[in-house]
Amino acid sequence: MNGAEALMKTLVGMGVEVCFSNPGTSEMHFVAALDRVPEMRGVLALFEGVATGAADGYARIARKPAATLLHLGPGLGNGLANLHNARRAYSPIVNVVGEHATYHRRFDPPLASDIVATAKAVSKSVMTVESPEELIPMVAATHAAAVASPAGVATLIVPGDITWNDVPDISVASGPAQSPSVDVERVAAAAKALRAGGVTLFIGGSATTRRGLEAASRIANATSARLLCETFPAVLERGAGIPPVDRLAYLGDFALMQLAGSKSLVLAGAVDPVAFFAYPGKPSRYAPEDCQVVTLATPAEPAELFLEALAEDLGASGAPTLAPSVLPSLPSGPLSGSAVAATIGALLPEGCIVVDESVTAGIAAPGLTQGSPPHRWLTLTGGAIGYGLPVATGAAIAEPGTKVVDIQADGSALYTIQALWTQAREGLDVVTVLLNNQSYAILQMELDNVGAEAAGPRSRAMLDLIPPDMDFTSIAKGFGVDAVRVYTGEELGEQLKRALAEPGPRLIEAMLPKGIS
Amino acid sequence: MNGAEALMKTLVGMGVEVCFSNPGTSEMHFVAALDRVPEMRGVLALFEGVATGAADGYARIARKPAATLLHLGPGLGNGLANLHNARRAYSPIVNVVGEHATYHRRFDPPLASDIVATAKAVSKSVMTVESPEELIPMVAATHAAAVASPAGVATLIVPGDITWNDVPDISVASGPAQSPSVDVERVAAAAKALRAGGVTLFIGGSATTRRGLEAASRIANATSARLLCETFPAVLERGAGIPPVDRLAYLGDFALMQLAGSKSLVLAGAVDPVAFFAYPGKPSRYAPEDCQVVTLATPAEPAELFLEALAEDLGASGAPTLAPSVLPSLPSGPLSGSAVAATIGALLPEGCIVVDESVTAGIAAPGLTQGSPPHRWLTLTGGAIGYGLPVATGAAIAEPGTKVVDIQADGSALYTIQALWTQAREGLDVVTVLLNNQSYAILQMELDNVGAEAAGPRSRAMLDLIPPDMDFTSIAKGFGVDAVRVYTGEELGEQLKRALAEPGPRLIEAMLPKGIS
Repeated sequence: MNGAEALMKTLVGMGVEVCFSNPGTSEMHFVAALDRVPEMRGVLALFEGVATGAADGYARIARKPAATLLHLGPGLGNGLANLHNARRAYSPIVNVVGEHATYHRRFDPPLASDIVATAKAVSKSVMTVESPEELIPMVAATHAAAVASPAGVATLIVPGDITWNDVPDISVASGPAQSPSVDVERVAAAAKALRAGGVTLFIGGSATTRRGLEAASRIANATSARLLCETFPAVLERGAGIPPVDRLAYLGDFALMQLAGSKSLVLAGAVDPVAFFAYPGKPSRYAPEDCQVVTLATPAEPAELFLEALAEDLGASGAPTLAPSVLPSLPSGPLSGSAVAATIGALLPEGCIVVDESVTAGIAAPGLTQGSPPHRWLTLTGGAIGYGLPVATGAAIAEPGTKVVDIQADGSALYTIQALWTQAREGLDVVTVLLNNQSYAILQMELDNVGAEAAGPRSRAMLDLIPPDMDFTSIAKGFGVDAVRVYTGEELGEQLKRALAEPGPRLIEAMLPKGIS
Repeated sequence: MNGAEALMKTLVGMGVEVCFSNPGTSEMHFVAALDRVPEMRGVLALFEGVATGAADGYARIARKPAATLLHLGPGLGNGLANLHNARRAYSPIVNVVGEHATYHRRFDPPLASDIVATAKAVSKSVMTVESPEELIPMVAATHAAAVASPAGVATLIVPGDITWNDVPDISVASGPAQSPSVDVERVAAAAKALRAGGVTLFIGGSATTRRGLEAASRIANATSARLLCETFPAVLERGAGIPPVDRLAYLGDFALMQLAGSKSLVLAGAVDPVAFFAYPGKPSRYAPEDCQVVTLATPAEPAELFLEALAEDLGASGAPTLAPSVLPSLPSGPLSGSAVAATIGALLPEGCIVVDESVTAGIAAPGLTQGSPPHRWLTLTGGAIGYGLPVATGAAIAEPGTKVVDIQADGSALYTIQALWTQAREGLDVVTVLLNNQSYAILQMELDNVGAEAAGPRSRAMLDLIPPDMDFTSIAKGFGVDAVRVYTGEELGEQLKRALAEPGPRLIEAMLPKGIS
């Protein structure tokens, strides 16, 4: 068996079922192996950032890794931004990068580059296969690294001759699943802080499941602690019947207000919150200076179990507070960001997945969907824009039959717009609601935040997406996705109903006033 | 003066006039500085790979660096593939990457990553500004590194607080221009080899100018040496009245034939040629094993001057062989790759710039344009696809008033399709001839070359771009570029004439038979 087939079969044996691919010459034997390893589904992307973002979305929903297949250093480079987001989401990914044949590298052919250096910035593990004997053990080790807590991106660099030569048949097995355990001393320390009062219970990671939220809500109710969620959770379970939780604001002034007066901050699956960026004269950390930080569980740990143990320690056996079922009315007239959010809130189907890359235009979306049927909410964990369309693609592949709603800002959509084609090819149930406000509105806001003055037309032009007018409906159709442009609440409601009722991908371009709406 | 303005002014003082930008929060002070430094032209890209590719195209034509402005590690990642191509083209680029404020980095905010590691793979120099005093000297050092032979990508990482705080006004000047000199011993050694006979004179780098080609042709005529050009020159001057030169073939079997029987290989601005990829059972180097390799000039040296000295040493004072003016007839009927090439050859305007990312579909283009009026031909130096649209964008900015013709394959266009918007916004004279053959035809060929068997539908699907059908005309219009789809030679001829006669960007989608044409 050649190395390409052995790699695929080894991954399949470990439960990896999907390979998001943008292959080149050095990966052709992997492509050929797809016919001999039918358990591995190859999903083609037109750009590597789509492949890596889809692997992130897949991992967040399937809770296990997909593989990627990228072409040498430049292919990895193209996939880097969404691997960064995956790293911040703690998404396991088996990141396979092709390389020149072992004996060919020393000739420095045109596509040669330092793949290890490029991979380092996003990977918890980087290995290069140097001999046929190493291949299968390194595949297993890479998979193990990807799934070990905290999960993340593990990169395996595979030279071409390793893929086409025979490799010895080495038997490997997945390591025993880590049995989650709870640190009783940290539970006791957190309980002590909560009994003392003035606590903000700050959750993230695995605490953002229904189970984690129920425990957190019971604790908050029993102790009067404030409950708050990290700004950008990988997957937040929410909606009617699930304990509601506010997220820490992205804007520093709001975040400082949310944490003001906290005597202790108990961290459950989240890290001590810091500003997304530094701003002149503003603090980097958000917690008050005299606030005690108590780590109950790190992002690498099963925070929902820690919360349950904490609830038990505190005798917090009451009922959690659950969000009531409240649907916004369908809006009418010209669209605004709020009108789009209300329409989505009114129509969101039970069990669906929301991918939120709405940036400024979607600021009202969390509030107006809080009372919608239960759903999962995915966010931009690493802040590298261009995650929405690919993550929605991967999420839809992870869970066929579930509708994925991608609330997508215009500026960020353009980084990985090629994902639409993969959605069309695979017939994925993704509805993209594209918020066209003709600008990088977030940057217009950030320009003020950092104290820069953009008085003139030359700087303002850097923040505008017109001229020329961008027509996302035309672009989407060009990639094979049916699309429509809407201007009013009535039109959006009608089109969203239709898109949610029909199978396959669809893009609705919601025309908003220019700038921050 | 704050750091952002000081950086811009220092670059302007060194002759840098354009900054290809995709900024984020950490770069907002640079954006604001554009209004105060009107000598610096900010050109916005919707994706970083467009900005870096445009900087490459600009440098190839302007023969001096532009700056880029990228957002942190993920922004650099998105720009990495085209920085790789720029590195292989020896294009000088001042690559400015924003970073979190110096005091904010230790908090590991979501967008933090190892920017230095990411930059290393493509940069000849990487510096991080740690204090206001360092800024201006480091800007000067980065510029100096970019332009020093061999020119390349020099990266400067600038934390946010450096951009918004005042920096001391330090006077710096560009170093004295390197005065080119010729190594007489290497000239003598090359002359000796040429007098012995059986030589292939292999040119690249600065030898691919009209001046270099004239010297090379005189040498070839005087010594019966074979004249050959590297496979992917950064800029090749060619056309009627300029000495014609064959390029070394991309396909190994052809390349081996071109070099067969060479007793010596004299390198002038090129490196010892190697296979683009390794293929099972094929050699990595292309020159015959017993062939002596004589380096006349490295890519870092002024190869055209070495060739002139060599011609003088050899007494090669005869006239060079010049390509005659021969225009192909305008083809009619259904399109093929050859028909597209003939149409371009028949209509190419004098002095224009051709950016060739035609991959398989454009294989006939060099031959059918050899007798067209003089023009410059830019190629995919680093092999990282997605270079054509951005490089055409930058080339057009470097030389206003000159038509740029981008012969563009479909698969590779999709990596950086966002460049069309910048072409529309800036009103650039770029005509994109998009060869739509609905496939990664190069990979269908490479699959055979590496000896992989793709017997089944699952592997073949990885090499097809349908389904769904891609409509590049619709995509281009969505980005604000006027576009049209053509099926016949007549239609293409008419549309290309019109596009070349009118100002501004235009895309012509040439529909070819599926696969290799």
